[in-house]
Amino acid sequence: MAKISPISGFPEWLPEQRIVEQAVLDGLRTRFESYGFSSIETRSVEPLEHLLAKGETDKEIYVLRRLQADDGASDSGLGLHFDLTIPLARYVQQFRGQLAFPFKRYQIQKVWRGERPQVGRYREFYQADLDVVVHENLALHFDVEMARLLVESVGAMPVPELVLGINNRKILQGAYESLGIEDMTATLRIVDKLDKIGADGVRKLLVGQGLADAAAETCLALGRIRATDASFADDVRALGVSGDLLDTGLQELTFVMESLADLPAGSVVANLSIARGLDYYTGTVYEGQLVGHEKLGTVCSGGRYDDLVGGGEKLKLPGVGVSIGVSRMLGQFLGGGELRASRSVPTCVLVALPSDAARASARDVANAFRARGIATEVFHEAARFGKQIKYAQKRGIPFVWFPPAEEGAVHEVKDLRAGEQTTADPATWCPPDADLRPSIVTD
Amino acid sequence: MAKISPISGFPEWLPEQRIVEQAVLDGLRTRFESYGFSSIETRSVEPLEHLLAKGETDKEIYVLRRLQADDGASDSGLGLHFDLTIPLARYVQQFRGQLAFPFKRYQIQKVWRGERPQVGRYREFYQADLDVVVHENLALHFDVEMARLLVESVGAMPVPELVLGINNRKILQGAYESLGIEDMTATLRIVDKLDKIGADGVRKLLVGQGLADAAAETCLALGRIRATDASFADDVRALGVSGDLLDTGLQELTFVMESLADLPAGSVVANLSIARGLDYYTGTVYEGQLVGHEKLGTVCSGGRYDDLVGGGEKLKLPGVGVSIGVSRMLGQFLGGGELRASRSVPTCVLVALPSDAARASARDVANAFRARGIATEVFHEAARFGKQIKYAQKRGIPFVWFPPAEEGAVHEVKDLRAGEQTTADPATWCPPDADLRPSIVTD
Repeated sequence: MAKISPISGFPEWLPEQRIVEQAVLDGLRTRFESYGFSSIETRSVEPLEHLLAKGETDKEIYVLRRLQADDGASDSGLGLHFDLTIPLARYVQQFRGQLAFPFKRYQIQKVWRGERPQVGRYREFYQADLDVVVHENLALHFDVEMARLLVESVGAMPVPELVLGINNRKILQGAYESLGIEDMTATLRIVDKLDKIGADGVRKLLVGQGLADAAAETCLALGRIRATDASFADDVRALGVSGDLLDTGLQELTFVMESLADLPAGSVVANLSIARGLDYYTGTVYEGQLVGHEKLGTVCSGGRYDDLVGGGEKLKLPGVGVSIGVSRMLGQFLGGGELRASRSVPTCVLVALPSDAARASARDVANAFRARGIATEVFHEAARFGKQIKYAQKRGIPFVWFPPAEEGAVHEVKDLRAGEQTTADPATWCPPDADLRPSIVTD
Repeated sequence: MAKISPISGFPEWLPEQRIVEQAVLDGLRTRFESYGFSSIETRSVEPLEHLLAKGETDKEIYVLRRLQADDGASDSGLGLHFDLTIPLARYVQQFRGQLAFPFKRYQIQKVWRGERPQVGRYREFYQADLDVVVHENLALHFDVEMARLLVESVGAMPVPELVLGINNRKILQGAYESLGIEDMTATLRIVDKLDKIGADGVRKLLVGQGLADAAAETCLALGRIRATDASFADDVRALGVSGDLLDTGLQELTFVMESLADLPAGSVVANLSIARGLDYYTGTVYEGQLVGHEKLGTVCSGGRYDDLVGGGEKLKLPGVGVSIGVSRMLGQFLGGGELRASRSVPTCVLVALPSDAARASARDVANAFRARGIATEVFHEAARFGKQIKYAQKRGIPFVWFPPAEEGAVHEVKDLRAGEQTTADPATWCPPDADLRPSIVTD
């Protein structure tokens, strides 16, 4: 028998931590659905050719092999998905005739990456994705909605405040064109490294690409622009760059920022450094961080793309989507103990069992409570009450109910926190709303 | 690019089918929690040695390999779990010091089996497991609770009526001992085949094991006993078998059946043919089928075990558990179209956009609705109303809201089913409760 031990990169939670995770996943789901996004789940596997089509991530894939496949040890040709975008692209193509476009979907599933384990990196984790995919033109409305949903969704999670940075690829590309830069992709990738290698590092790489010092300086100045409103546009123009693509980008980002003006101050920031270098975005791009936890990196990100499918002219599916790194955030705060549930079980009331003869009446009390939405356990044996109360205390169950030991006597209920015991009617008693379900406690 | 196609054994649902699946999973979760069961999720992988420890299922395992592992093409030593019992056993051992016993947990997760695809067999599917694991003695109370939860949980699913068969291994073993049978396991396995090979087949195999004709006949007669109350005990004794183990089994099953007497008539049946031949059960065993869909086979099953862990005397963890084949049932009825949602999106109201200038007021209406728990979309562009209404109709959204085109004019709401349009106040309007969420429709 192998040693019983955790496997690095495959997090697991205790019941009281799982309560927090469930509450977070429920909250995301409720909010996504309140905006009309439909849930889908895709199979966990995709053909390897699909997973490898983008090329960049081949090292991260877990391939499946049937242990005793008849054809020897050969692979199944299937790999576990490492994101929810490739599965979405395939799903949309496969069910295209049965879906209504614009197709607004959310997807909360585990993804797997066969990475070398390292701190803060998981090999199995929850991701929550939102995308709108259309057939024809994608209204800017959706770029606004994505940002709004991200701010509201992460804002409702029991984690520190989110600041969502927004940029538009067209601004960067328009400015670079204006500066005579030809290799857009290489430049975007370099600028995207600003946080990692600093301004000097970026400057060196840009100049290394053959860029003049002044142009490199303008790229850096562009990346330093921040604004909580639409004032960024003037700052960009002040750099002396111009052009149609740039104008379009500035208009789009202005629309997005102005449409989000009702959100809490500082929750969205036009951040002209955001490039999302490795991705296929073509317009609005998003990157969110938690205030005071910037070291955790990007906790949500996404953007607008011209074509989800990449299948050529005939089957273009533009869209805009974002991804929330649920496990990355929860891992940080659950693992550290700053985040926990008020009790370790869903149970609100333990019905004590005074005697074997009282089983049926204890059961009836419990059934009446359950029918009113009160999670209830009946103690499993007619042990002394001290033992039964201890069972409840150990789990943080707030109430113990005592059915009468004899027919016709009164029922009593004890609040274990206050230590108070009172008579009560099982047909009408309800706990305070705050006690119905475990609550989330943050330090 | 590989062909876009379904992969046999990996089911996927359309958004309107997923709504049904979510409602079913939510219903199970709510019911499990109403009995105080805690949710856990275990990692999707376990070390191969653990998965292979039981020996019977090695053909069904998917092994993971990192596509570009540094050490060549070697396996990770990890396999996807094929049930939720092996992971539970490992989890309980690993976190033993941090769990409260009796440990009541439920687990709703996907499991994977690398089987050859065949009708009704999935390679990726949802299973919902309930177990109570204890340190010392396991009260019979829990055997009753498992049966009750199964009947209530499956009974609340939008599937045909469940009949839960219950037996006790001690009755079978006690009777076999009384008949002088020595190889219990072989006999249990043969009797378990009754449904598949019929009475003649079983008789032949039993006699083939060296059993006298009369003893084989008694085994068959035992397996024919059915009762919806505790009357089975007299029928068993009438076969002339006796002994301590038999007596204990009869007492236990009598207690279970009598404790369930309040359930709807016929929902639980003492069925003395149930053996669960391949499993490690030692007392109560369960097997449920859907009335009229017996061909679908067992849709839920389980039983009591003396030791979850199998780690020897020092670490015995007895328990009782059941497993519900969620995907097996849903696949049957969702796939066939008998089961569907009343609409394909969560959206209850589409707020129409009369003009670009009205965006902020449309957004405010939507936010007010969302705050009252009404799932709301704002149409993404100021198209003509005909197009906006068509968007709602196509998705089955019941209401379209029309904010005023000019400041100060009235809001109106249209019920697309009745075709009625009335003025309404966005600060107070609520849809009928039945329209708030998509409902489940069964044929």
